[in-house]
Amino acid sequence: MPVGGAALDLVGVPLPDETLSVAKQSDAILLGAIGGYKWDKNEKHLKPETGLLQLRAGLGVFANLRPATVLPQLVDSSTLKKEVAEGVDLMVVRELTGGIYFGQPRGFSTTEKGEEIGFNTEVYATYEIDRIARVAFETARKRCGKLCSVDKANVLEASMLWRKRVTLMASDYPDVELTHMYVDNAAMQLIRDPKQFDTIVTNNIFGDILSDEASMLTGSIGMLPSACLGESGPGLFEPIHGSAPDIAGQDKANPLATVLSVAMLLRYGLQEEYAAITIESAVLDTLNNGFRTGDIFSSGKKLVGCKEIGEEVMKSV
Amino acid sequence: MPVGGAALDLVGVPLPDETLSVAKQSDAILLGAIGGYKWDKNEKHLKPETGLLQLRAGLGVFANLRPATVLPQLVDSSTLKKEVAEGVDLMVVRELTGGIYFGQPRGFSTTEKGEEIGFNTEVYATYEIDRIARVAFETARKRCGKLCSVDKANVLEASMLWRKRVTLMASDYPDVELTHMYVDNAAMQLIRDPKQFDTIVTNNIFGDILSDEASMLTGSIGMLPSACLGESGPGLFEPIHGSAPDIAGQDKANPLATVLSVAMLLRYGLQEEYAAITIESAVLDTLNNGFRTGDIFSSGKKLVGCKEIGEEVMKSV
Ligand SMILES: CC(C)[C@H](C(=O)O)[C@@H](O)C(=O)O
Ligand SMILES: CC(C)[C@H](C(=O)O)[C@@H](O)C(=O)O
Repeated sequence: MPVGGAALDLVGVPLPDETLSVAKQSDAILLGAIGGYKWDKNEKHLKPETGLLQLRAGLGVFANLRPATVLPQLVDSSTLKKEVAEGVDLMVVRELTGGIYFGQPRGFSTTEKGEEIGFNTEVYATYEIDRIARVAFETARKRCGKLCSVDKANVLEASMLWRKRVTLMASDYPDVELTHMYVDNAAMQLIRDPKQFDTIVTNNIFGDILSDEASMLTGSIGMLPSACLGESGPGLFEPIHGSAPDIAGQDKANPLATVLSVAMLLRYGLQEEYAAITIESAVLDTLNNGFRTGDIFSSGKKLVGCKEIGEEVMKSV
Repeated sequence: MPVGGAALDLVGVPLPDETLSVAKQSDAILLGAIGGYKWDKNEKHLKPETGLLQLRAGLGVFANLRPATVLPQLVDSSTLKKEVAEGVDLMVVRELTGGIYFGQPRGFSTTEKGEEIGFNTEVYATYEIDRIARVAFETARKRCGKLCSVDKANVLEASMLWRKRVTLMASDYPDVELTHMYVDNAAMQLIRDPKQFDTIVTNNIFGDILSDEASMLTGSIGMLPSACLGESGPGLFEPIHGSAPDIAGQDKANPLATVLSVAMLLRYGLQEEYAAITIESAVLDTLNNGFRTGDIFSSGKKLVGCKEIGEEVMKSV
């Protein structure tokens, strides 16, 4: 079903009603990247991004799981020193349907002095914080049992409530070690010592920034999948990377983030753990066999295009 | 004059009236770091941070200049690979008295359904964007002539107005090359290739996050000064780092960021360029002579405490 730029070209809106209703009736949704130069200057309601935000909101997928793992095969792709990058394996749990992305009021206005203003509202209700905190504690419990909640509670009221509710929930999870960190410090600590993190939970906008930062630490964002999950209903699965319009149609893109998103879809969306592992192993085998797209290429490896690396994954299944 | 935690202990408020009025009457202000565990649980109006925000607002210092420079002497302190870190020399121009830090309305409330909410307002008026953009263009002009404006204009109205106004001003600066970048991408690009940046201009909260990220790229935030400047009136100069309560009283802290803040004070606050350079050279000589505090220590260098490295700087003047 079309969404984003494709939908704009086909029917003139970034999220056609039919796309949303078919998505809602599905068992799980695999999303390609949206956006591109062509639509960059569109007005807000006609931006590809608006379609994505409408889809997330429409499906109620409030929990965005974004793993950032440094694969031993690709540790050299990181711009971090080997000893810093090696062994990084963290998960950002980002709140996805609230906060400043969706808060009302928002818009443009004119002050009494005739100045134009643009404004947005960062807002969180207790139920929104509680449900994402629960996903985060559950995620941390299944991982290494360490949860770091990131906020700006020394300045923002929305963050103060966030910290209060996350702290309250900790009593339900005595096996999870909860810490708090300010967002500016988190942006530093991710670079200083990313291995200190296991699971990070944070709001929509901080999660947008920190998950991209974390993914770039791995040096291979062309490899990273993500899952967007709701209370019930289908999950949405997508690569972390964007649409990379600069290399469109050149058979250069790395398809592995999308392939690994299918693995996440099988695991979290369809409870098909065996199928998920099969795909993940095939991807690792492909890397072990030395195949690399340009973004993760290093000398001594075999440089291949999008199509060929996909075929290699198929052969390894 | 006391501010932050010191003022709380002395007189019970984080910014005494007298501190603000003496500051306003001064030629320039040197600020120590504020905050510490002791006051972490204080209510908002009794937080050390609130005193700092009141001081910035009270002085009208809307432009925060935060350089992130990798010194050749300290390139090994960075967690980035040498070839990535070497030669990084960028300046973040952060808007400091507007946006979500100060926007109204803000606070706590209860929804019709009885849910507690916490909320803040991200808001920018054209005059606020214009004056910070002007500082940024002027800064870029004196540096390498490249300005990157960072926003989230694909989602936020406040950012759309930001981008529009910054773009408009570009016609006054034909010699400066202006680009725009989304904040999530900027958080990635700083790690992927920090050398692509010369001057970055961004709003208060994005600037808080990105300037800390950029400073950590250098591996030596104990070395980084900053300047907060207004339209007229005295500037405020402070190290980028926090108060590091974990090492308080142990003679371990690196004083060089504060020493270099004095150099910025002399340069931007008192137009004493010669004195500024004298201090900066003394700091470089101290590093060249091999003296290092713990945070920037590497093997083969002389590990010294806060007091001793200060004395070495004095000797080098
Ligand atoms: C495209 C954009 C609206 C989106 C976001 O900000 O959420 C993207 O950056 C992401 O992180 O998925
Ligand atoms: C202490 C805090 C309020 C402050 C800020 O967020 O501005 C600090 O992080 C800074 O960057 O100077």
